[in-house]
Amino acid sequence: MEEPKYFLLDIDGVLTDGKFLYSSEGKLMKSFGAHDNDGLKIIRDKLEISFITSDKKGFDISKKRIQDMGFELEYADELNKFVLVQKKFDFKKLIYMADGFYDIKILKSCFYSIAPNNALTQTKEICNYVTQRNGGDGAVFEACLHIYDKFL
Amino acid sequence: MEEPKYFLLDIDGVLTDGKFLYSSEGKLMKSFGAHDNDGLKIIRDKLEISFITSDKKGFDISKKRIQDMGFELEYADELNKFVLVQKKFDFKKLIYMADGFYDIKILKSCFYSIAPNNALTQTKEICNYVTQRNGGDGAVFEACLHIYDKFL
Amino acid sequence: MEEPKYFLLDIDGVLTDGKFLYSSEGKLMKSFGAHDNDGLKIIRDKLEISFITSDKKGFDISKKRIQDMGFELEYADELNKFVLVQKKFDFKKLIYMADGFYDIKILKSCFYSIAPNNALTQTKEICNYVTQRNGGDGAVFEACLHIYDKFL
Amino acid sequence: MEEPKYFLLDIDGVLTDGKFLYSSEGKLMKSFGAHDNDGLKIIRDKLEISFITSDKKGFDISKKRIQDMGFELEYADELNKFVLVQKKFDFKKLIYMADGFYDIKILKSCFYSIAPNNALTQTKEICNYVTQRNGGDGAVFEACLHIYDKFL
Repeated sequence: MEEPKYFLLDIDGVLTDGKFLYSSEGKLMKSFGAHDNDGLKIIRDKLEISFITSDKKGFDISKKRIQDMGFELEYADELNKFVLVQKKFDFKKLIYMADGFYDIKILKSCFYSIAPNNALTQTKEICNYVTQRNGGDGAVFEACLHIYDKFL
Repeated sequence: MEEPKYFLLDIDGVLTDGKFLYSSEGKLMKSFGAHDNDGLKIIRDKLEISFITSDKKGFDISKKRIQDMGFELEYADELNKFVLVQKKFDFKKLIYMADGFYDIKILKSCFYSIAPNNALTQTKEICNYVTQRNGGDGAVFEACLHIYDKFL
Repeated sequence: MEEPKYFLLDIDGVLTDGKFLYSSEGKLMKSFGAHDNDGLKIIRDKLEISFITSDKKGFDISKKRIQDMGFELEYADELNKFVLVQKKFDFKKLIYMADGFYDIKILKSCFYSIAPNNALTQTKEICNYVTQRNGGDGAVFEACLHIYDKFL
Repeated sequence: MEEPKYFLLDIDGVLTDGKFLYSSEGKLMKSFGAHDNDGLKIIRDKLEISFITSDKKGFDISKKRIQDMGFELEYADELNKFVLVQKKFDFKKLIYMADGFYDIKILKSCFYSIAPNNALTQTKEICNYVTQRNGGDGAVFEACLHIYDKFL
């Protein structure tokens, strides 16, 4: 069996609860969970972990959180996401975790696909694994333990 | 059968979770969802999409989010909302999505009515379609797919 | 039967979801719901509506929201709350809506007691009516309709 | 039977809902509940209550809330937490309430262990008592009443 080498994660709805807090000045805050970093620590020596987002206006918010955890974040708009992922990763070695409509093509193409419980129904249906917990509330922690038990 | 031409949406509780974040300075923030814009993109070439709100003190917050998605927002207080909608739209071609008490009359009069799962019971009872997801958490995305499948 | 004359409401957990948003500067924000003012409008000509809170550090936040709805808010610490309410209101004509531990004595003494669904178990058990919706998410709207149907 | 003397509590996911609100400037806010202080008041004369956290970037936020309730907060990173707790407390007299992965060893070693309902599954499984309510929504209040009924 092919072995995973990369773990790529979407941000909104996966590491967050999928909400954008807006003031009259614009997108101001997002809500991240306390457990996810504990999970990533368990697998970060064994997989190359990276993050991708299509949220341009909230990019700096997401980037700050990802950097606080010691990782990097890349931007790709919805329509170019598939091509960018295809260029950067070998699909046969990629685990992808995401929740949205424009993630479905990548989730279908990668080695192993994970969705949080709060993902869109259409997205959950085509994933290898759906966590019991929601994004921003332990979904990534749970995914990390699942990956560790299954592949590492 | 009559065909829909307009999709009009309420803001609070539909595009948001219906919460107002207050500081001692007043209404400061609202929480919008990450999926809804993906849904609106699917139908925006086929329907005229617009937004209406009765929340005056939070108008600038809502307006900022709606403009970030590339649409316009109009204000109408609860008691004038019905008349304003009647003037601007042909009820026979209008899909309206809303969750509140003062929306019931419009929802009853329009071509097709949609409520998010978190809407008031009284509002949900009289709607053609109730989404499974809540406002600010994918309700509008789900409504857009439903409209696409049913009418477009 | 005695007729209600007053409707007194607690703030945190009743008009809000009971959460305090803290920054390093202290209590910064609370989350109020969009429907409750619509409910209060329905009964405000028939009952004297007022608000009470034991949250001193968040008083200015609560006061701002209550004033935005056109009402006044009074402070009383947990231990003096009962005596203050007794002085200001005739218990036999008072409807009280609250969710906390120090509200139980007042809820037991008043004419009619209401708790939101998210109230403490101990509080819900002794109330005449428990709403289906949570504080900050339509509980007060639902209570207002219930009062209107039952007493007005 | 040994009698408890200390009640030590974790912060994130216990006194909060486990969410970190991030802006582009970093961790900005956390959400604490309104009932917990009422519970702590009931037992604070009979147990020595203290708080511990492994969240460095959010330390000042947590500290502000804990000080507003009249207690002190100590920092210990995940890997040193067990040793620090062991030094400061007699495990045979310690009640510990926590929700995370790195809390399990302490929870297993102390006199009596409590987890909120939203704790990780792995954490809940090894605790003496799991509250029905979630962190930041009455879990600590419920734990205090449980401790009072069982030990005080």
